[in-house]
Amino acid sequence: MSRVRLDLNISLDGFATTTDQTPENPFGDDWGRLTRDYTATRTFRERVLHDETGAGTTGVDDEYAQRYFADLGAEIMGAGMFGLHEHGNDPDWRGWWGDEPPFRVPVFVLTHTPRPSIEMANGTSFRFIDASSEEALAQARAVAAGGDIRIGGGARTARSFLDAGLVDELHVAVVPIILGRGIRLWDDLRGLENGYEVRAEAAESGVTHLTFRR
Amino acid sequence: MSRVRLDLNISLDGFATTTDQTPENPFGDDWGRLTRDYTATRTFRERVLHDETGAGTTGVDDEYAQRYFADLGAEIMGAGMFGLHEHGNDPDWRGWWGDEPPFRVPVFVLTHTPRPSIEMANGTSFRFIDASSEEALAQARAVAAGGDIRIGGGARTARSFLDAGLVDELHVAVVPIILGRGIRLWDDLRGLENGYEVRAEAAESGVTHLTFRR
Repeated sequence: MSRVRLDLNISLDGFATTTDQTPENPFGDDWGRLTRDYTATRTFRERVLHDETGAGTTGVDDEYAQRYFADLGAEIMGAGMFGLHEHGNDPDWRGWWGDEPPFRVPVFVLTHTPRPSIEMANGTSFRFIDASSEEALAQARAVAAGGDIRIGGGARTARSFLDAGLVDELHVAVVPIILGRGIRLWDDLRGLENGYEVRAEAAESGVTHLTFRR
Repeated sequence: MSRVRLDLNISLDGFATTTDQTPENPFGDDWGRLTRDYTATRTFRERVLHDETGAGTTGVDDEYAQRYFADLGAEIMGAGMFGLHEHGNDPDWRGWWGDEPPFRVPVFVLTHTPRPSIEMANGTSFRFIDASSEEALAQARAVAAGGDIRIGGGARTARSFLDAGLVDELHVAVVPIILGRGIRLWDDLRGLENGYEVRAEAAESGVTHLTFRR
């Protein structure tokens, strides 16, 4: 049975976004700190950076990185995660991930200004839809061939799927830094744990992996 | 060397206090959920409830409960934790812990309306002082005989010691529930992790124990 999964990195104080972006540093230093232990994994280096040297960490963080890419049938992400906030005026923008994006499945990008679909060589396609969470999920299921649907982010997209009760498995990597500002993942989600089994696993890096599963 | 330690339970969304107290249920259900895995430990049952049957959990949560009481020389707590907010008009109030409080060391209670000290039979004394965090710490050190000083809570007292940079070791038990309201531990503490080594350990219960140590 196809499951809806959501993965996010948050700070100890619950922030899923960062606020220190500049034109010279478009992701910001805080984003680097928030994702450092994930981007250090062997799986990330292979799958996203196409580093075939075998470099990267292989501990608990890497186990979650492997799961992140396993059994996917389709992905849904917000316009900001695809880069439309910065690159919406560029008709040739194809996302941050180069010619071989790590998804290898259809990716639905939620946007109020859809553009033509993009087919990449490795099974990844980007399809731009103006749809509610439920509608996007129905479209994703239709092409997922029984694989899981992953909600890729960003924070607002993630929260809208959580708010609507649509997520079967939530994986949150809690990074031991305190950001103090941004968008809080947990706001207005009192009692979210009800109906889920919650598991915590600590990684060598200091990151805690929380899994909410129903 | 005497160290300043601070222990707190917080929810996943960072709340160290709860909001569902009623006259009939003065601690509230949420407080019970926030402290459930701690109060289930064998150490808590022995040390606080004087249960000599050996009942209680003995896993990771219990290891932290043991550390909680180890090597203490003195304790500092806020007026609310001692019960002065509810019982401030009762000159005979001696705290929530019965005739044998679990501290067994001098306890300094921070209050703007000091009252006479209370000596208990088991080495615990309660001393009521109107003092800044720094002043309280100096008084506690003077009687701690080289033992650690623990900041017992509640949330506002804890935050004032953290804000002032006075804490050598912070242990936070993060409980996998989302409360949605209360006092947030981490507010205004951006960058707190700097100068600390941070370690995460997951307990069987689903609680994550974070330790900030310098």
